[in-house]
Amino acid sequence: MNKFEQEAKKYFSNNVTDRDRAIFEGAITLGAIFHQFIGTPIKNDPKTIESLEKSIELSMSCQPYIEKITAKIIPSRLKSGEHIYDYSELRGENLILEVISKYGNVRVHSGMKYIDELDFPLMYIEKIEE
Amino acid sequence: MNKFEQEAKKYFSNNVTDRDRAIFEGAITLGAIFHQFIGTPIKNDPKTIESLEKSIELSMSCQPYIEKITAKIIPSRLKSGEHIYDYSELRGENLILEVISKYGNVRVHSGMKYIDELDFPLMYIEKIEE
Amino acid sequence: MNKFEQEAKKYFSNNVTDRDRAIFEGAITLGAIFHQFIGTPIKNDPKTIESLEKSIELSMSCQPYIEKITAKIIPSRLKSGEHIYDYSELRGENLILEVISKYGNVRVHSGMKYIDELDFPLMYIEKIEE
Amino acid sequence: MNKFEQEAKKYFSNNVTDRDRAIFEGAITLGAIFHQFIGTPIKNDPKTIESLEKSIELSMSCQPYIEKITAKIIPSRLKSGEHIYDYSELRGENLILEVISKYGNVRVHSGMKYIDELDFPLMYIEKIEE
Repeated sequence: MNKFEQEAKKYFSNNVTDRDRAIFEGAITLGAIFHQFIGTPIKNDPKTIESLEKSIELSMSCQPYIEKITAKIIPSRLKSGEHIYDYSELRGENLILEVISKYGNVRVHSGMKYIDELDFPLMYIEKIEE
Repeated sequence: MNKFEQEAKKYFSNNVTDRDRAIFEGAITLGAIFHQFIGTPIKNDPKTIESLEKSIELSMSCQPYIEKITAKIIPSRLKSGEHIYDYSELRGENLILEVISKYGNVRVHSGMKYIDELDFPLMYIEKIEE
Repeated sequence: MNKFEQEAKKYFSNNVTDRDRAIFEGAITLGAIFHQFIGTPIKNDPKTIESLEKSIELSMSCQPYIEKITAKIIPSRLKSGEHIYDYSELRGENLILEVISKYGNVRVHSGMKYIDELDFPLMYIEKIEE
Repeated sequence: MNKFEQEAKKYFSNNVTDRDRAIFEGAITLGAIFHQFIGTPIKNDPKTIESLEKSIELSMSCQPYIEKITAKIIPSRLKSGEHIYDYSELRGENLILEVISKYGNVRVHSGMKYIDELDFPLMYIEKIEE
């Protein structure tokens, strides 16, 4: 652990475990992605979709202790750009996220997808490896 | 736990504890607040500051398992509106956040503040009560 | 016109009129409000709605040459908070905006509202006074 | 002009010219880009920078009457990722925008760049072709 990580650790409660921390860092990134990118104009065009997915993955991977991000925009839920007002925005309904965070020896797989039964883009913890 | 909470629980790994979940939900909200509101125009005017703090607290308290949010914008780090271009944006440097999340019997106090030594708006877990 | 406004004017083409500029400044603010606040959690609770409307109006009025902003969130298009996942986000469908911009002697009334026929939150110029 | 454009035109004041409209649409997009993407994590890594520039250009070109967008992130103003907290956010200080909007026969070149003398990311109209 370098001096910057040690400095940061001072602000955390002493009883915070590696597991707590790995969960914490992954969840921050899920909330961050959603509220940073929701509202972005998007239409069912492979090049535009792929570019936005890739830039979400690359930019948000700058966040601390994030090992991998996968962003998947669902083309069938997007308008197709047939006229000038025929485009969508990125929304919980058309976005699927997977985030792998790692702190110490603990790796957490968390994600987000829209759940019909809840009419809600649910964020959840899929797997904790320690 | 009502049927909606039960439905949501299906998507979580079986070994997720109440402590894990309380941390997870608080962290989502920290990441969400930052990336939703960063960039909002703001100047050193008490009415504008207080209104933005209050609306961050009220709107983001809609998020699941959030018990309390405190948002504090630091007036001394804002431009004062002396001419037409003399205003700031909400940034990590001028915002302090406290979030209390609760799941089952576990209550987590997390927060965000700008740390000079890191030149970074650090998010951290201050206290876990269980 | 003070020295800051004169400095800014240097970057504008010489043939830009007061009318052009009043339209330009109002439109920036419409685009800015939408993409700053869309995605904010909100439910049908008068206090939360009123607080968010007010903070949109106050914060975005910091922008150059903006005389007045009215933000109206439509309560009937919001979820009511009956369970933990029962809340909405601010969207084009539940937000109405009016912006008055003024440059020199020209005042422009512009706005945004959701148009059913377009399935689109349209931004438009309602009136130009000169 | 198709039926969707005719429907939209109803909401505009009768005395709005093609010039007014081309300015209006370009300015919306400038305000939109800034407030959608400001706050995105970014570091001085060519692949990450290029990907974010490209996705800004492609996604925001969905907006009505936008002919071309150029987004340039300034690498020298970004942190380089030497440790886990050593990254930046997209800000007015490290972003340059050019937007070409066209309505009828009028083409408007507008843009945004950070102006030292104003300590402000100024949006301006560079050229109006009609």
